[in-house]
Amino acid sequence: MRIVVLAGGIGGARFLRGLKQAAPNADITVIGNTGDDIHLFGLKVCPDLDTVMYTLGGGINEEQGWGRAEETFHLKEELAAYGAGPEWFGLGDRDFATHIVRTQMLAAGYPLSAVTQALCDRWKPGVRLLPMSDDRVETHVAVTLPDSGSAEGPGERKAVHFQEYWVRLRASVPAEAVVPVGAEQAKPAPGVLEAIAEADVILFPPSNPVVSVGTILAVPGIREAIADAGVPVVGLSPIVGDAPVRGMADKVLAAVGVESTAAAVAEHYGSGLLDGWLVDTVDAESVTRVRAAGILCRAVPLMMTDLDATARMAREALTLAQEVGEA
Amino acid sequence: MRIVVLAGGIGGARFLRGLKQAAPNADITVIGNTGDDIHLFGLKVCPDLDTVMYTLGGGINEEQGWGRAEETFHLKEELAAYGAGPEWFGLGDRDFATHIVRTQMLAAGYPLSAVTQALCDRWKPGVRLLPMSDDRVETHVAVTLPDSGSAEGPGERKAVHFQEYWVRLRASVPAEAVVPVGAEQAKPAPGVLEAIAEADVILFPPSNPVVSVGTILAVPGIREAIADAGVPVVGLSPIVGDAPVRGMADKVLAAVGVESTAAAVAEHYGSGLLDGWLVDTVDAESVTRVRAAGILCRAVPLMMTDLDATARMAREALTLAQEVGEA
Repeated sequence: MRIVVLAGGIGGARFLRGLKQAAPNADITVIGNTGDDIHLFGLKVCPDLDTVMYTLGGGINEEQGWGRAEETFHLKEELAAYGAGPEWFGLGDRDFATHIVRTQMLAAGYPLSAVTQALCDRWKPGVRLLPMSDDRVETHVAVTLPDSGSAEGPGERKAVHFQEYWVRLRASVPAEAVVPVGAEQAKPAPGVLEAIAEADVILFPPSNPVVSVGTILAVPGIREAIADAGVPVVGLSPIVGDAPVRGMADKVLAAVGVESTAAAVAEHYGSGLLDGWLVDTVDAESVTRVRAAGILCRAVPLMMTDLDATARMAREALTLAQEVGEA
Repeated sequence: MRIVVLAGGIGGARFLRGLKQAAPNADITVIGNTGDDIHLFGLKVCPDLDTVMYTLGGGINEEQGWGRAEETFHLKEELAAYGAGPEWFGLGDRDFATHIVRTQMLAAGYPLSAVTQALCDRWKPGVRLLPMSDDRVETHVAVTLPDSGSAEGPGERKAVHFQEYWVRLRASVPAEAVVPVGAEQAKPAPGVLEAIAEADVILFPPSNPVVSVGTILAVPGIREAIADAGVPVVGLSPIVGDAPVRGMADKVLAAVGVESTAAAVAEHYGSGLLDGWLVDTVDAESVTRVRAAGILCRAVPLMMTDLDATARMAREALTLAQEVGEA
């Protein structure tokens, strides 16, 4: 069975670990979000690709869900001592190696997809990990920052890099707009459209529907390829009980005018793209609404509390995909 | 008193610490060797400048004489896990920060002299540290590597970067030639010629006469400025008892046809450049030979066993300079 998964960072990576347990013989291709990539200290950092690679390769910091296990932060301390910013992004000493190798390979002319494959040669994630695009796409968030001069005065409206919004500001101000800068000109990375065309099932893990899955879908050709693939497309709601399972998805959902409910996210993807949708048991009453939107829906436990629970979620998604196929 | 010191790495840095104690009110300008600079992992590494900066700024690993105190090597371990070489150059996690900041500033268009000043803003070495040149100069060593194929066959003659000769090969094969590639086209960094012209004394610490002091002198204009400065130029022998005090200076002295003795090094600099020369007490018999070459000479203890001993050496050098001036 060939499965294609569109993945963001932590949520996508953890779901993939469950999927590997649920379908150990499946041929899994992961299309990773690169919209939250950022250049820091002259280095190219790909947080979502790395989270998937480290999580599936056994190198992740399990507690925080990102970054490396047994990490130290001496380099970062020294950069701060030099006054070299930003200090709000937590790059560890071990993690830096990934960014240095990636940056060197990019400088030598390799595309990001080839670099990602080379990095995965070490980590052996057990899936084929593809960046959504070799072209630069950078998610920016429009915000109004409080005016530090006067409490009365108007705030400063500006666009900040997604990482600045998410990590530095901790999504503490409303996201007024989310723009995947460069997406319109981006091409899917080599292998992306082929993997979609050859897939038996396409899954949307409980990743952020706006800045993770949404950004991947914003690369021209990917949404169309999924809609035209003619195979079941099944998603898992990242919203449980009207709140994101983790992260701050509600903040960016508001920016695109979508309420933070499991049903609203399904409607946001729409029946033109999505065939099946899993909501958590606490959201069982939303099943009717999702079905009314033309999307097969079932309520099952959606908390990735441990690997077994996550594998059960993946199995439920594959079962729903089978039902879609038979329907 | 304005003192100009031409410095390599460990020997020069330790001497400077003694000089600062010996002449606490002196205005010291250090012209640092950059011929052993190397690009590693896409980063610009300046070993000699950093050794001076860390030593005088209190950040040096005292035991090994280079690199940072309380250092860890997690990034290097990870680079090795990726198969990203070279592994023979020991870059620590804290040390990496210096190279990252330097590389970013160079990429932003700052010359090395401005970058060095910015780095020193943090370290406050208590001297003015100038690279010999803002232009790229890279010391290469011609060697014949043993032929791994056949014991009979001819070896492979090639030029290797000085760091490869020194650190990877540990000077285990003869240096057939030492070439400061790019030196002929290099210009002294801003401030270098001015500092020499305004100096009251110019000192050559017990640094390597070929690949440290020799490389600095190879930058067109510097040797001439020193010879024309009209102030005492005094050096301290890096050779004690026919062997280098530390390092492998004898290996590269052979390449330029100079024997490893205190007197031969003085003659190599020559009376056109050098006015005074300190040899160790074990080399007292060479004093006559050095004086015969037209260079004032005295035998004093030259082992930098601790800071006080080093300060005594610096005081002897300044005393000899005074005698040169009175002669």
